[in-house]
Amino acid sequence: MTLQIETPAVLVDLDIARRNVRAFQAYADKHGIRVRPHIKTHKLPQMAELQLEAGAIGITCQKVSEAEAMIDGSNRIKDVLITYNILGAEKLARLEKLNERVVLSVVADNTIVIDGLSARFAHTERPLTVLVECNTGADRCGVATPAEAADLARRVVDAPGLRFGGLMTYPPVGAAARVQSFMSEAKRLIEADGLEVPSITSGGTPSMMEAADAPIATEYRPGTYIYNDRSLVARGVARWDDCALTVLATVVSVSAKNRAIIDAGSKVLTSDLLGLAGYGHVLGRDDIRIDQLSEEHGRLVSDEAIDLVVGQQVRIVPNHACVVTNMVDAVHILEGGTPREKWAVAARGRVL
Amino acid sequence: MTLQIETPAVLVDLDIARRNVRAFQAYADKHGIRVRPHIKTHKLPQMAELQLEAGAIGITCQKVSEAEAMIDGSNRIKDVLITYNILGAEKLARLEKLNERVVLSVVADNTIVIDGLSARFAHTERPLTVLVECNTGADRCGVATPAEAADLARRVVDAPGLRFGGLMTYPPVGAAARVQSFMSEAKRLIEADGLEVPSITSGGTPSMMEAADAPIATEYRPGTYIYNDRSLVARGVARWDDCALTVLATVVSVSAKNRAIIDAGSKVLTSDLLGLAGYGHVLGRDDIRIDQLSEEHGRLVSDEAIDLVVGQQVRIVPNHACVVTNMVDAVHILEGGTPREKWAVAARGRVL
Repeated sequence: MTLQIETPAVLVDLDIARRNVRAFQAYADKHGIRVRPHIKTHKLPQMAELQLEAGAIGITCQKVSEAEAMIDGSNRIKDVLITYNILGAEKLARLEKLNERVVLSVVADNTIVIDGLSARFAHTERPLTVLVECNTGADRCGVATPAEAADLARRVVDAPGLRFGGLMTYPPVGAAARVQSFMSEAKRLIEADGLEVPSITSGGTPSMMEAADAPIATEYRPGTYIYNDRSLVARGVARWDDCALTVLATVVSVSAKNRAIIDAGSKVLTSDLLGLAGYGHVLGRDDIRIDQLSEEHGRLVSDEAIDLVVGQQVRIVPNHACVVTNMVDAVHILEGGTPREKWAVAARGRVL
Repeated sequence: MTLQIETPAVLVDLDIARRNVRAFQAYADKHGIRVRPHIKTHKLPQMAELQLEAGAIGITCQKVSEAEAMIDGSNRIKDVLITYNILGAEKLARLEKLNERVVLSVVADNTIVIDGLSARFAHTERPLTVLVECNTGADRCGVATPAEAADLARRVVDAPGLRFGGLMTYPPVGAAARVQSFMSEAKRLIEADGLEVPSITSGGTPSMMEAADAPIATEYRPGTYIYNDRSLVARGVARWDDCALTVLATVVSVSAKNRAIIDAGSKVLTSDLLGLAGYGHVLGRDDIRIDQLSEEHGRLVSDEAIDLVVGQQVRIVPNHACVVTNMVDAVHILEGGTPREKWAVAARGRVL
């Protein structure tokens, strides 16, 4: 079926997105886990509203400018966690404004960040809530030990203008046991210091259906689950039918028997591999590999005859949905399989 | 030195860009090669003007919407080649408008594209110039043999509304001999058919200083040469001092002795590897590897102590300059090493 959409284009099937959101919300509700979706996957206030309607208690953003775009885009977003170490006068000034508009919290994994936040918020009316980020194996941000987490919790409590909000982690896949042990010990130490731990928040779509295996966590932050992608199908946690985001492309050249070129390259699909071979899955064509991308061309190859003609459309499930969202100014929303409207990607490119 | 710029940010050193542009223009002038820079690297009308001032005869764009943005952004852009097979009613309608504004040419490597262009331009006043794209080893678009090129040249000449503009190729690195032999034979066949070959255009920054080794080509389309990047330094065709585009980032976390996290991830640096290990080069720190990117975090590791502090800025030469340009709404222009102004990236995200 040819869609009357100029290509390349990013399509989002709203029916599938709704179903994905409800499925995890049902799991979380059953296990008493609060859901705070990460908006990096969709960057759309409308999708955040859909998640809130389904039962989410708020949203997660990665950058201050993302939070601004989301809050500007929906007055139903009232609770935002920015899971980032925030530094610098400009960002702190913007953070202060956000803290007057919504229930806001941020994270910190070091004293420089805590002291910077405190210097800004010491003289404001509303304190800023700060969670301590813990490293449970991803080896990105986060304190390395429960003892360090307890030290930083005390530092936050003692810092003028700040309020201790609990513990945050972004664990690697399959690390529920590690989350459970790290967070339990950190909580014990913090409580032994006479403090409360209001929230313990974990995240990550690949392991979300094992969230209950770390019952110490009170909150979960799935991101990609709303759209799914090839990486999640490869992990066995989604099927092609669960993939809400696809890239619509047109074949522009068939210059060899087993090769075709499409008008979507790394400027739409991105070069993210996430450990996979190739740059996406052509729906309905298991024989095809997208073996090479340049910026505006994607190369499709098959061991058999490629059997595509110039002008023909293909739909591709990208390796990583979140990064594709960031490449386009707008996405096409489908309902009942039919394009309904275009939504501007409000938080696209918000890296500050 | 700390720059008063909110991070992450893309910086472009105008002095270096000017020097890079002049260096290739001097080479091309010496060898009688016309220069038609590909704007994909900078996506800035101002940089195109700099290239035209240096002696370029026009510009190259990859997509219709890129050409629109560039022409809208500068009335000094009067000659545009779109090196793409263009299909679809919307794009053809926009192409017709562009053809009324500038000297326009496009490419085709198959009869479906040629027939589509002809159907649109048959009834317009100004014919559209079409070059035949030839595959000289990149195995992306392009006809496979000189004989096919000659067949398509004849098809263009016979198509109402079209004018044959010559031959175009985007060769792989180090393919000057192949370009020379393919294009010579194609030209011979086309001329034997009683047609002229007005232009033979080749491209690619890595091999640009061997452009004269394929003297059959009358025109060259370098792109990345204006900025350079880590991939070109790795190939030995540029030094770090020749890299005009850098990413300014701030260290946000130092949670282990040999690891630091910066506020630039794949949303700025992109996941393009171009055959390299790691995601960029930290200037002045040969010991550091950027071994992992998530969307908003970059991980820096060293075998030695990382010796960076939270809040410190680093400057990174990305693997691939062109794709980084596409990630941001604006770049910071430096002159004399000092930030002067911000330029909106006019042709960012133009994939249609």
